[in-house]
Amino acid sequence: MIGPGKAELLGLIRDTGSISAAGRAMGMSYKRAWMLVEEMNAAFAEPLVFSARGGQGGGGARLTATGETVLALYAEILTLAATAAATPLAALEGLLRPRGQSDSADGK
Amino acid sequence: MIGPGKAELLGLIRDTGSISAAGRAMGMSYKRAWMLVEEMNAAFAEPLVFSARGGQGGGGARLTATGETVLALYAEILTLAATAAATPLAALEGLLRPRGQSDSADGK
Repeated sequence: MIGPGKAELLGLIRDTGSISAAGRAMGMSYKRAWMLVEEMNAAFAEPLVFSARGGQGGGGARLTATGETVLALYAEILTLAATAAATPLAALEGLLRPRGQSDSADGK
Repeated sequence: MIGPGKAELLGLIRDTGSISAAGRAMGMSYKRAWMLVEEMNAAFAEPLVFSARGGQGGGGARLTATGETVLALYAEILTLAATAAATPLAALEGLLRPRGQSDSADGK
């Protein structure tokens, strides 16, 4: 329904007032940003994003009240989850390869 | 580093003893399954999957001790996170469109 990418897109739509500007800020095509918005609007009982489609500059976009609520709930879930799972999360991160150390010359 | 898709792939590699069988069970190409395994092996200080590449049947694959630990930590993180965030998660789910109800004829 919503994950890190869609949540970031929602936040950027709120901040920029534009679906295309929000997608651009994430290095995403206009088409993909629209597709994600349409997926979110279809997944929830009420749309999350209201947009004035077309026109010069492509109209504008803003979050609906439901969109604001979804974004706030998502942030709350992340905070609660990160706090509760801090110990195994730190253990998992401790198993990662140290940054800057790589097994290939090109850093991949 | 690891998310739902990679965790599912790891679990299926453990269960099937094969990267290609695990990928197939997820409807994933052989190439993509290998790429995800290589990403995981590169992201962690120790490889998560040991594989005997090539040969008839493509060799076999199994999780390393680190791979087992990563999978166990991931499951623990999910459980703790879901418990801690149960209230806002339920609120978020309550905003979803009821299943079977769609705004388009083809159910998309």
